[in-house]
Amino acid sequence: MPDKKDDVYGDHISHQFNDEMMALKTEFLKMGGLVESQVDRAIHALVDNDSNLADEVRATDKKVDQMEMDLDEEATLILARRQPTARDLRLVVSVIKMVSDLERVGDEAKKIAKFAIKLSEEGQAPRGYVEVRHIGNHVLAMLHDALDAFARLDAEQALRIMREDKRVDEEYQAATRTLLTFMMEDTRNISRCMSVMWILRALERVGDHACNIAENVIFMVKGEDVRHTPVEEAEKVVGR
Amino acid sequence: MPDKKDDVYGDHISHQFNDEMMALKTEFLKMGGLVESQVDRAIHALVDNDSNLADEVRATDKKVDQMEMDLDEEATLILARRQPTARDLRLVVSVIKMVSDLERVGDEAKKIAKFAIKLSEEGQAPRGYVEVRHIGNHVLAMLHDALDAFARLDAEQALRIMREDKRVDEEYQAATRTLLTFMMEDTRNISRCMSVMWILRALERVGDHACNIAENVIFMVKGEDVRHTPVEEAEKVVGR
Repeated sequence: MPDKKDDVYGDHISHQFNDEMMALKTEFLKMGGLVESQVDRAIHALVDNDSNLADEVRATDKKVDQMEMDLDEEATLILARRQPTARDLRLVVSVIKMVSDLERVGDEAKKIAKFAIKLSEEGQAPRGYVEVRHIGNHVLAMLHDALDAFARLDAEQALRIMREDKRVDEEYQAATRTLLTFMMEDTRNISRCMSVMWILRALERVGDHACNIAENVIFMVKGEDVRHTPVEEAEKVVGR
Repeated sequence: MPDKKDDVYGDHISHQFNDEMMALKTEFLKMGGLVESQVDRAIHALVDNDSNLADEVRATDKKVDQMEMDLDEEATLILARRQPTARDLRLVVSVIKMVSDLERVGDEAKKIAKFAIKLSEEGQAPRGYVEVRHIGNHVLAMLHDALDAFARLDAEQALRIMREDKRVDEEYQAATRTLLTFMMEDTRNISRCMSVMWILRALERVGDHACNIAENVIFMVKGEDVRHTPVEEAEKVVGR
């Protein structure tokens, strides 16, 4: 049996460990909040033709990149010092993966901001803004819900996000078809419509990343890898 | 001092650990070889108008996905059982990240195969194949070199890949400009040229993933995170 001194020491270690895990979660959610706002502001910059806001989004991406590197370092330090196992280990490994998703969401926001600037110089695109707004709101909601599912380790909510991803893909396909028709009607629209195409593509990718985060939440909670699994299979995993 | 028995036991453990690390590297390189061939075959399917080959590429993506899940599980088990530190820990964490890059390269190959099928149905695109071949060869060489740099933990070679990425971006920009002009010349080309646009985009992404792998190699060897760092800075890190 450990003596009193050991006990106190053990408590102290586990206390520190819990604090570090909590800090990792908090920092991850902070990064999530930042990239969420980056996507939101990039869409506003485009729709409101506001190139100053677009410039701000591009500049803020440096902060997103720094957060990625800090979080990776923090997670690696926890692995080295605390050697977590089971559910704690799954959480740290998942954070390492999801951080890279958040960084890519930040990149997509930067890309949208770049095209917002291009379009404000060339003159706004004649069509596609309704679709950008619509798909933009949809994927922003997914991203928000995915971060929320992570905060509460809610596998049911994560499952709902996996289901949404299919709908976004359908909306995206419909939107690109509409834009293609419009490009064919008048060649003067082509260059600007192409910019909107890239923006829609970026938004669709944001939805994919939200979905990746959701899959990681299910892995953290259930210990099963539901990537590359049909939603019906994932439902069985979550239902267990 | 440990007695003889401990020593033998320690040797045994470290032997097993080395075997597991080696197996992780080997499996990763196997997955790398597979996605390399997936991209190569997808390009051939497109250029040779071979939709059977494109179908094969799409079917093989399931194998890529399975390898991703297996490698992630293997890496997580090593973390749980062996609790590696320092350079070993960096290798395991890097593998977890790079596996996700390889899986995405596989997705890009699948996407190219999808468009190869679409184009073989619609009639081949009138332009852009030279560019696809050229950029395709370029990013395939980058991917190959990145995997080779990982196999030999060669930071100098990794640095060369980071430099190549800029050139691919320039080639990609030039190719999309050419295609855009061609779309404007004749609206009947638009739909097929769009397919080629998406293919070029997929190839450019393959280059990005090769670059991510290269950055991870530098991190493994030098212990410094050179993502989001200008190449000149990365050069200093590698030169140390």
